[in-house]
Amino acid sequence: MTRIAVLGLGLIGGSLLRRLAATHDDGHDANGYDVEGYDVIGYDVDAATRRLARASGLPVRDAAAVAVRHAEVVMLAVPMAEFAGAVEQVAPLLSSSVVLTDVGSVKRPAYDVIRRLGRPERFVGGHPMAGTEHSGFAASSADLFTGAAWVLCLEPDTDVDRWVRLARLITGLGCRVVPATSADHDAAVARISHLPHLLAAALAIGAAEAGPLALALAAGSFRDATRVAATRPELTAAICAANRGEVEPALAELIERLQASRDHRSLLEAGRAARLLWQPGDTAVVRRKLRIDSSGLADRLLALGRAGGWVEAATGVDLSLAGPPGI
Amino acid sequence: MTRIAVLGLGLIGGSLLRRLAATHDDGHDANGYDVEGYDVIGYDVDAATRRLARASGLPVRDAAAVAVRHAEVVMLAVPMAEFAGAVEQVAPLLSSSVVLTDVGSVKRPAYDVIRRLGRPERFVGGHPMAGTEHSGFAASSADLFTGAAWVLCLEPDTDVDRWVRLARLITGLGCRVVPATSADHDAAVARISHLPHLLAAALAIGAAEAGPLALALAAGSFRDATRVAATRPELTAAICAANRGEVEPALAELIERLQASRDHRSLLEAGRAARLLWQPGDTAVVRRKLRIDSSGLADRLLALGRAGGWVEAATGVDLSLAGPPGI
Repeated sequence: MTRIAVLGLGLIGGSLLRRLAATHDDGHDANGYDVEGYDVIGYDVDAATRRLARASGLPVRDAAAVAVRHAEVVMLAVPMAEFAGAVEQVAPLLSSSVVLTDVGSVKRPAYDVIRRLGRPERFVGGHPMAGTEHSGFAASSADLFTGAAWVLCLEPDTDVDRWVRLARLITGLGCRVVPATSADHDAAVARISHLPHLLAAALAIGAAEAGPLALALAAGSFRDATRVAATRPELTAAICAANRGEVEPALAELIERLQASRDHRSLLEAGRAARLLWQPGDTAVVRRKLRIDSSGLADRLLALGRAGGWVEAATGVDLSLAGPPGI
Repeated sequence: MTRIAVLGLGLIGGSLLRRLAATHDDGHDANGYDVEGYDVIGYDVDAATRRLARASGLPVRDAAAVAVRHAEVVMLAVPMAEFAGAVEQVAPLLSSSVVLTDVGSVKRPAYDVIRRLGRPERFVGGHPMAGTEHSGFAASSADLFTGAAWVLCLEPDTDVDRWVRLARLITGLGCRVVPATSADHDAAVARISHLPHLLAAALAIGAAEAGPLALALAAGSFRDATRVAATRPELTAAICAANRGEVEPALAELIERLQASRDHRSLLEAGRAARLLWQPGDTAVVRRKLRIDSSGLADRLLALGRAGGWVEAATGVDLSLAGPPGI
């Protein structure tokens, strides 16, 4: 039984607690995944959230210190603005063998905090690519992560043994674990997540300014293009601010691309080709094994991630890799 | 039995033919709508498309002239680039009492063509807000229009009697008929449809350029923000070119809005407020009747559309209006 503490029970942390709690009895989850048994405990700084989680039958403690005591894995699922405070609070309470991870949307600032306040060899930064426009425990779901990509960072000061242990836990939840440096992660998510949020807001404003007729005509393309504009603005603003070094150049490139587009034909053609590159389907996926005692394991994993690949399962001996041809 | 011809059997025309053919036997469609009986015939310039439609059991003729002979309503559902040619071909064949309509995405150029080649009093420009990223007859469906907004234009040279007849037909398909001038329509769709297509392309290109890691991490916000990037580029390019007078200023405003955004917080807050204005739900909808012999009917209908309202049913006596409070 791996002892796990989840701190912060919003959309992500609440979903994690639900998912892990659903597995802790018999080592199999509701989807039949063969996972380790977990002894999981949750905590949230907000008493109402704790009550809500308890009312859902989840194991919740009233103090972070109690939740993390004896934990082998501590998952920090707090808003970005509260991350440093949470690390400061719990770092002194953790065992020297703990795996500390997080679920934040921007990874370099998390490592900055950890290198300042924590012991970086205990930390593996994480990011499940599984948000929605909703937030809070009420929106949480044990299924949120099924099939999702989940970045686990590999940095020069990462303890690869801890990384593998965490990869085993996360793949056991039905996720694809994608290895990446914090810098590569932040550059990628600026373009596939943070920009879409900013554009959704700008599009929604333009439609509303055009008036009630425009809103009455808005259909599928508007619905989808602006869905994430309903996200709590302070969350997205904090993410964009934390990732300003990538978001601003990505936005500038996008604006330049739009301004350089004359008749839009070539933009639309390139856009279609790019969109069709995404998720070409399982037939194009190749698979291989990688022993965890391989030399240069971290570099091999980072090369896998850069090639678009992921870890889909892990044992104490090897990792099952998958991805596009060439991984 | 209203005799209807549908010319062009792509996504929109094919769906229309399916929908109308499903009602022509007993005056009730599959969803139980109480509609007039229709005697509908389809035609497509492409022989393979005609074969495909016939194989689906639909009534198809091998010549446009045969299809439009005796038709009381002619629906042109051809690509924008073929619209002028189609009008030139069929206009001389139409009866003087015909209602000619179209389904094109940009309405001012359609009226330019009609005023040059046709008799504008016979024409009511239309636009169902119901596309998808797919095209062609193979993607068509009798359900495509259910619940959709369908613009019917009112211009100074519109015959309002024909407009009402067409509104009765379209509301009978389960659509909200939105009255608008061609200019107001084109300004609105630039902002709620054409811009989202351009931004989807630009976002997809940025993600692909960022590399395989970025595409592997792309999840819900990327999926939705770029869905319509998979649309056939020549279709969207033709639409953007035809609506250049609205698309270019709308794009410039959007770029300015993004460039003026410093910490993005206020952009994201305004974006959320704008998104939540959209589709506030049926509880906020008010309803009233408008007699079709009302004085200034066209102006009243245009005021309805500008206020975000629509026609949800029509009889020979009155129109059932719906929309936000204040219509």
